[in-house]
Order: sequence, then structure tokens, then C-alpha cells
Amino acid sequence: MPQPDRVSALGVPDPAGLDDDLKAIWAKCVEKLGFVPNVFNTYSLKPQRLRNFMQMYNEIMLSPSGLSKLEREMVAVVVSSANRCYYCLVAHGAAVRALSGDPELGEMMALNYRVATLDARQRAMLDFAWKLTTAPNLVDDADRDGLKAAGLTPEDIFDLSETVAFFNLSNRMASATDMMPNREYHRQTR
Amino acid sequence: MPQPDRVSALGVPDPAGLDDDLKAIWAKCVEKLGFVPNVFNTYSLKPQRLRNFMQMYNEIMLSPSGLSKLEREMVAVVVSSANRCYYCLVAHGAAVRALSGDPELGEMMALNYRVATLDARQRAMLDFAWKLTTAPNLVDDADRDGLKAAGLTPEDIFDLSETVAFFNLSNRMASATDMMPNREYHRQTR
Amino acid sequence: MPQPDRVSALGVPDPAGLDDDLKAIWAKCVEKLGFVPNVFNTYSLKPQRLRNFMQMYNEIMLSPSGLSKLEREMVAVVVSSANRCYYCLVAHGAAVRALSGDPELGEMMALNYRVATLDARQRAMLDFAWKLTTAPNLVDDADRDGLKAAGLTPEDIFDLSETVAFFNLSNRMASATDMMPNREYHRQTR
Amino acid sequence: MPQPDRVSALGVPDPAGLDDDLKAIWAKCVEKLGFVPNVFNTYSLKPQRLRNFMQMYNEIMLSPSGLSKLEREMVAVVVSSANRCYYCLVAHGAAVRALSGDPELGEMMALNYRVATLDARQRAMLDFAWKLTTAPNLVDDADRDGLKAAGLTPEDIFDLSETVAFFNLSNRMASATDMMPNREYHRQTR
Amino acid sequence: MPQPDRVSALGVPDPAGLDDDLKAIWAKCVEKLGFVPNVFNTYSLKPQRLRNFMQMYNEIMLSPSGLSKLEREMVAVVVSSANRCYYCLVAHGAAVRALSGDPELGEMMALNYRVATLDARQRAMLDFAWKLTTAPNLVDDADRDGLKAAGLTPEDIFDLSETVAFFNLSNRMASATDMMPNREYHRQTR
Amino acid sequence: MPQPDRVSALGVPDPAGLDDDLKAIWAKCVEKLGFVPNVFNTYSLKPQRLRNFMQMYNEIMLSPSGLSKLEREMVAVVVSSANRCYYCLVAHGAAVRALSGDPELGEMMALNYRVATLDARQRAMLDFAWKLTTAPNLVDDADRDGLKAAGLTPEDIFDLSETVAFFNLSNRMASATDMMPNREYHRQTR
Repeated sequence: MPQPDRVSALGVPDPAGLDDDLKAIWAKCVEKLGFVPNVFNTYSLKPQRLRNFMQMYNEIMLSPSGLSKLEREMVAVVVSSANRCYYCLVAHGAAVRALSGDPELGEMMALNYRVATLDARQRAMLDFAWKLTTAPNLVDDADRDGLKAAGLTPEDIFDLSETVAFFNLSNRMASATDMMPNREYHRQTR
Repeated sequence: MPQPDRVSALGVPDPAGLDDDLKAIWAKCVEKLGFVPNVFNTYSLKPQRLRNFMQMYNEIMLSPSGLSKLEREMVAVVVSSANRCYYCLVAHGAAVRALSGDPELGEMMALNYRVATLDARQRAMLDFAWKLTTAPNLVDDADRDGLKAAGLTPEDIFDLSETVAFFNLSNRMASATDMMPNREYHRQTR
Repeated sequence: MPQPDRVSALGVPDPAGLDDDLKAIWAKCVEKLGFVPNVFNTYSLKPQRLRNFMQMYNEIMLSPSGLSKLEREMVAVVVSSANRCYYCLVAHGAAVRALSGDPELGEMMALNYRVATLDARQRAMLDFAWKLTTAPNLVDDADRDGLKAAGLTPEDIFDLSETVAFFNLSNRMASATDMMPNREYHRQTR
Repeated sequence: MPQPDRVSALGVPDPAGLDDDLKAIWAKCVEKLGFVPNVFNTYSLKPQRLRNFMQMYNEIMLSPSGLSKLEREMVAVVVSSANRCYYCLVAHGAAVRALSGDPELGEMMALNYRVATLDARQRAMLDFAWKLTTAPNLVDDADRDGLKAAGLTPEDIFDLSETVAFFNLSNRMASATDMMPNREYHRQTR
Repeated sequence: MPQPDRVSALGVPDPAGLDDDLKAIWAKCVEKLGFVPNVFNTYSLKPQRLRNFMQMYNEIMLSPSGLSKLEREMVAVVVSSANRCYYCLVAHGAAVRALSGDPELGEMMALNYRVATLDARQRAMLDFAWKLTTAPNLVDDADRDGLKAAGLTPEDIFDLSETVAFFNLSNRMASATDMMPNREYHRQTR
Repeated sequence: MPQPDRVSALGVPDPAGLDDDLKAIWAKCVEKLGFVPNVFNTYSLKPQRLRNFMQMYNEIMLSPSGLSKLEREMVAVVVSSANRCYYCLVAHGAAVRALSGDPELGEMMALNYRVATLDARQRAMLDFAWKLTTAPNLVDDADRDGLKAAGLTPEDIFDLSETVAFFNLSNRMASATDMMPNREYHRQTR
């Protein structure tokens, strides 16, 4: 049975009715990506929520940080793997493939990051991401000390933690709304 | 052994060095609450992250919604209970007590919401919050249909989901940084 | 919705019909505490069971031991936290607050004991309590050796274990009967 | 490697030094069973604790109740199976075999009670025992209503619950002390 | 860091030393697939084990059955998703993509099959596969009746069960030996 | 209620209709064991599947290996204990009793292997079996190194892993078909 076209179980407003700032973003997405990511379509049900989400996303994923953009995407995918979030695994798995140029790495992050050969710093970051996602109440000084021993500064730990935290938010928005990733992601950087 | 004073395991910058907009917020907190919530102190390590966090928080918890402010705080506490987040249970448990005027309700939300006597709509919201927190990959149409049957509109489901999602973010920031709640919360509305 | 008055889902016999020894205990409770704890009301459905429960409780929690009364109450609350037992968290959380004079410590024990700053001996006791509660089949010599290294004698380990075991009993009686704590506990030592 | 003789990891006092009431019980055990159950030997480290344990045990397992003695032993074994308690599975598995005359039933209770063919009332009791043991915080009115629909009175539910609760206590004492069952149990009623 | 070439943590014998029947299979694989699947390389450490594995695999996955070959591959991937088996997700994910011609379906099976739109019969098969993998002791008549209601015969249930069982075997061989999938799979049918 | 006679929920074909090779095996079982194991009766629904199963079983459990036959049966029982598989615990528990001459060891393997006194090599094998069964995705080099440190060669690790893997298959076939062990096992070597 072919998968039907769908975006969000809560419905998506007609983009023609969006405010101008959002219309401009829609146009820019089409220009740069060829499509509007469905997380935007889904969030457009509540426009101010969408603005806040994009603002936070851009700061966490794109602003200067001790973690590279690839590392932040790797963290995003590992968190989404722990939560089995289809949308984020597809969209950010594509980002790992694109930023690393290594399709195998993207699959490893999505399916079981423990099989990947990584340097100690990245492995420590991903182990922390998994634990903070699946058992946040067990995180303690030993975990933070492990990150410091692997070379992370307090600011790096903050950025790592917020990346983990943010995808725990976005994974749940995707699951709650049955958000479907745009099909274009599947073919990227294979 | 008396509990030592502490705020965040990642350290807190001197507030004297904060930007003016944040200094103004600090002053307003002291004026209205008598203290600056430690989540702000913790986040001030990265000022723009703090601004985004406050903006998202205010929209989710304080803007008009089909969920009352008390209901949103109840959801916040139930999510934090599932994640056993000390900071959020203390701070938002106080909010449930204050908004409801019912200290018993606050304790029930923090310790085991299933013992509370609630109307069907609130119970459905809290069951959804628990499931979306602990097993997001299992959420499906049956869960959304249950919320609709309890009277929630798609916009209400969006707001509920984002509240759940947001506290899954903030719980993890608190656990990752060993964030300590201000002691003033403990005595409020007992 | 205000929480309704209730004690036990199995019903509570009229105290006027109790045997004289129990009536005397009821009177003493009212005199000393201002109320009869609802665990007694619940158990009065089967009077001999109540007598045995009180006898075991008094020996475990009040008789001389290498563990202080406060430490035994801390263990009681941590076990009840693992089991999310509303009755015992409310009643014994109040006891931790009263015996320690530290309301913050009571909240930490109830919500996530791992955030508390404790000496190594108490931390070892609470870690053992958590493991013996949640994964008793995994307890082995390494755990007992850890307690000995923290200074506990075999008799102390016996007392610690029986405290853990007893609250695993009482937590389940409370959950099975939907036992509600007396409201007076909520306000004590805040 | 043959299994070494052992009773309790906390050590067992010389029975010659026991109080007379306990010596009399030891003698009676030898007379009736051929041996002193190791739970008594283990508990004799703290004689008053032993007395309370025996008193509670006798009331729960042997006094008149709407649950037959076999049913209470079946519950004991199912709880011990959930907790994987070696001592209680061996000792009470033997009791199920003896009371039922059906060695197969004893094995089913110990290994996976769901494979047994049981009447609806017994199956409801064992399902309740499993849930109250493994997820006590999820027990609610639906569970109690299920027991009532299967014919249990409030007093029966009390007795069932206390049996479950008691073996959650004794399983943990056995695991905490590495209590070994007497070898005589293995051969009984095979 | 580029992923190093590796096949099995237990080492792989020189194929030049293989028995003739296995050499013939190696040659056929190269001819038809372009490579020898690493599961064969890994198993060649014990040649007779490899023969038995191939024989069982061919019967389960390729012989006539009420389940189509695509359905059997979908079951294989869902089992491997529950077990987070990297090798089997990569190799059999490629098979789902190839047999269905639908890359999206392959991703859904690997990442979270619950998001897929499926007919009731296939959904029932995959729900059974998940439960039999993650909680085999809870499978009971209600599960088998559900399969029958969805149209499966006893023989179909046998075939479905053996497919689930077989991938629970092969997932564990892959995890135990750190078996790496051939890189060719990643690019197939994208 | 006496347990009814039953073999498999999927039904068992009349043995009179079996192929001659299987009839010969049936006759040999009756001659040597006094009965046809119900796993054969269950599998006879699909004769070629049965042949493959027997072939793999014989190779894994009976062919020369660095693991003794008793050790392989101990592994079989520990895997079946983790999966709570009634059939395999009964049938292979009997095998442990028979091969070791130690009924206590059989019970320990079935109920909680951690209570057994074992040499370091056997304990390492059983710990690996438990982990590979319950959390295969977490098995990594540290686990394999532990086995090597305990004296296992790569071939031994292969054999151990395949034994674990095979019983994860057979446990699921037993649970899926509600396979009942022949009653003769219960009385053997008690």
C-alpha cells in the first residue's frame, strides 16, 4: 500500500493566509531546499509558536559553539533514535549525511550509534545524549566530569545539553502530531 | 548535613555583567517574587539562549489557550514527575498550589497524579502528558482521538503537546546542570 | 475540583465497633497527633492484621538501631519515591521534615534523592534502598560490600534491608487500597 | 562446582544462644519438617524481628480467609517470580506442589503463571499480584473492580493485597541477605 | 573520522581455505550481488554453522508461505528495529526497499513502524512481531486470536512466528560479533 | 483445576501422516526418552522447518565445542529464564539436572542464576548470555574482552553467542505457539 500524503494529524492551515514574515520564510525554503519542511507546516497552526521554535532552533543548531554543526546534528539523531522519532530521524539523518559526506555515519547515528567508530570526545557526547534522554534523573557529577575529561568546557556542556533537551522537545511535537517528513529527505546524500 | 547553597554545576556568571535587558528582568523578578529564579541564573551563562527560553516559556505558559494556566502547570508537574526533575517539581509544584489554592493537588501532581480525583478532560490531558513523556513513539491516533472525545480541539492538543514537549526540554536542562530551585518555593502556599 | 474526603477504597469500619486495645490506640493518636493516621483506619478492616502491622512498624522504625530514626525515615521516603506511593511519601515526607528540621531534605528524598548532598554512608544506604526496591534480584555481594565499606555492620545492613522491605510492603498496601493520607501532614514543618 | 553450604550473607548466630521461645520453635520445626527453615536462621540475628515476621506470616498465610491456603501460596510464588527471588520460589514452590498435589502447577507459578489454565477468579488474583508487584503506582479502581467482578469481597481484596505486599517484603529480605533455601525443599512433592 | 573497514570482531578466515560448497556460494554471491554478505563471512569461522544458518534462512525467507517475501522482510526489519540491530536493519531495510520499490516504507519499518499506513493484516503481523520480540512471555491466546481475526491461518502464524524468532537469533549473532553490513546496501533502491 | 493435556495452540498433525525420516525420529525418541518432545510435535506442522531446527539444534548443543554440554544447557536455561519461557525452562532445566547431577544447580539457573556459586569463566558466560538476551544493542568490545579475559577463544565466543541466539529463537517459538513441555520432564533427576 503506497503511503498517503500527509503532514500533521492536527491539520495544516492554508499557507496563503500566513503572515508576511512567515510567507517570506516559506519562499526562502522553497528557493533553498525545494520545499517547506513539514515541521514548519505543522507549527503554522500557531504562528507565534513557530517563530519561537525557529528562533530557538537556529540559535542551538547554527550559532557559534564548541560543538561543530555536524556534532550537533549527530546529537540530534541519537536523541531521536532513543525516542524513535520518525520525523527527526529522517530530516536530521539527512543532515548528518550531508554535513559529513558519509552516508554510513548517518545510518549508524539513526540505528545504533554504539557501532560507530568515533573519537573519545564524540563518543562521550553521544553517551551523555543517550542517558540525558532516557534517564535524566540519573545524570550526575560523574557524567559531567566525564565530559570535562573528554575536553568539553562548561559552555560546551551547556550547548550539548540544550541540543539534547531541544530534540526531546521536537521529538515529542512530532510524535504528538504524527508529523511526516518531506519525502525529499530520503534521497539526499545517499 | 545541611544542604549547601548552589545553583548550577556549570557555574553562574556575575549578574553585574549581564546585558541591560536581562538586568531589567532580574530587577523585576526581585520586585515581584523576591528572588531571581535559578533557571534564569543558570541560563545566563549563554544570554541569547536565556532570551529564547523565556520567550518560548512565556508563550506556552502564559498566552491565551484552551488550557487554563492551572492546567498547564498541572501538565508541567506531571511531566516533571515522570522525569523525576527536582527543580521543576519544586518550582511548578508551588505554581499548582498557588493557582489552585489547593496544596493537596500540588502534591498529587508531583507524587502520583493517578490518585487525584479529576474531571475526565483533565485526566485525559495528564494521561497523554505521561505517555508522550515516557513513550513518545507509542502515541498514535487512538490517543489523539481520546483527547478529542474529552473535548480538546486541534489547537488545544497542540498547546497540550507543546507544554509536554517544553518540560521535557526544561527537565533535561535542569538535570544536565544540576539546577537547584530557590528555597523560597518550598514554603509557598502550604 | 476539590479533592473529596476518602480513606480507603475497601471501606473503613465504624471505629465505635473496634476492640478496646485499638480504641485506646485511636485515642492516643488523637491526643498526640490530632488525628488517627489513615493507615490505621484502613487496616482496621482486619484488626489482627493491624496489630501485626503496628508491632512490626514500631520495631523497625522506633527500636534501637545503628540507623538513626531520621535515616530510617529517609529510607522509607526513598523506597516510596521509587514506588511512587502517594500515602507514604506524604506521611513519611512529613516525618523527614520534622526529624531533620529541614523541609528541603524532605522534598529531595521524595522527588529525587540523588540531588541531595549527603555523607557517603547515607548515600550508600539510599542507593541500596533504591536498588533493593527496583531490582532486588540484582543485589549481590558487591552491594553488601559497599555498605560495609561505608561503615555498616551486619546488624545495620539487616535493619536497613528490613526498612526497605517493610516499605515495599506498606507502599503496596497503600496502592492496593487507594489509601489517602490525612490532610494534616501537608502543612507540617514547612 | 558443587554449591557450598550457606544460609545468610550476614551470618547466623549459634542457635544454642537463642531465647527459649525460639528454641522451642526450632525444635518444633525439626520435628515437623526435619529442618529449621533458613528464613528463621537468617532472621535470628535480630530475635524480635523474627518474632514479628513469624506472627505476620502466620496470620497472612494460615488464618481463615476467603482465599484458600493454596491460593495464598500461588500468590506468594507469582510475586516471587516477578521479583526472581530464589529462596521464596524454592520454599513456596514446594508448598504449591504439596498443597495442590500438582507438581506441574508449582512449576507454572514459578516460571510463568500465564501458561497455566486457571479459573477466572484465580487468574484475576494472579494478574493483580503481578501488577501490584511490578507497577504498584498503576493500580487503580479498574483493577479493584476486576477483582470484585471475579467474586472477591473487600476483605478478600485486603487479604490478597497483604499477601502480595508481604512477599514483596520477604523477597527483599531474601535478596538483601543472600538467603539460601534449605536443600530439602527441592525434592518435595516432585 | 571515516569508518574503518571491518567485518566481525571474532575475525574472518581466509576464503581461500573454505570448502568447495562454500566457495561456490561465495562465487554465486559475487556474481549476483557483487559481494559476499558479511553474515556469511562472519559465520565462515564455523562452516557447518554457516550451512545450517543458510538452510534455515532460505526456508523461512524464500520458501512458499502465506506471507509474501516483502511481508517477511518487513517483519525482519521490525524485529531488528526493536533489537536495534545495525547489520540486519541495513541489509533487510535494503530488501524492503527493493521488494516494495518504496524507500519510504523501508525507512518506516527501520525507524518506527507505527507511523506507516498499513492494511489491518500487516499491522497485526507487525504488532505481533514487536510483542513477541520485546515481551515473549506476555504473548497469549488474545494475540493469536487477533492474528486469526486478521485472516492468518495456523500455518501463517507459524511462519510469522518463525520469522520473528529467526531474526531474534540473527540480531543477536550480529550484536555478539559486531558484524558490519557491506557498504553496498546503503545505496540500494534509494 | 488440573492442567489439561495440550501441545501447541496451532494444532499438531497426526503423526501417522509424517514422512518416513520423521517417523524414524519419533520412534527413536520413544525408544530413548519414552516420549516425543513436544517441540517436535509442534514443529511437525511444517516438516522442513522441523528438519532445519533439529539440524541446527544438534550442531549447537551436541557437536564438539570449547563449551561443555552442561555449560551449553546452563546457557540455554539462563536465556530461557530471562525470557520466562516455560517450555524451555522445563525441558532444559531437566537437562542441567541430568548432566550435572545437581538438582539445585538446575533450579538456580532457571530461577536466578546470580545466586549460584560458579567459577569466573562460567559466571562470565552467563552474564554475557543475560545481556545478549535482554539488551543485545548494548553488547560491545568490553563484553567480548571480558569473555577473553575469562579464557574464551573467538570460537568459544561464537559458540556461546550462537547458543544464546538459538534459545532466543526457540523461546519465541514456544511462546508464540503456547508449546507445552511433556510432563515427564518434571520428575527427572529430582
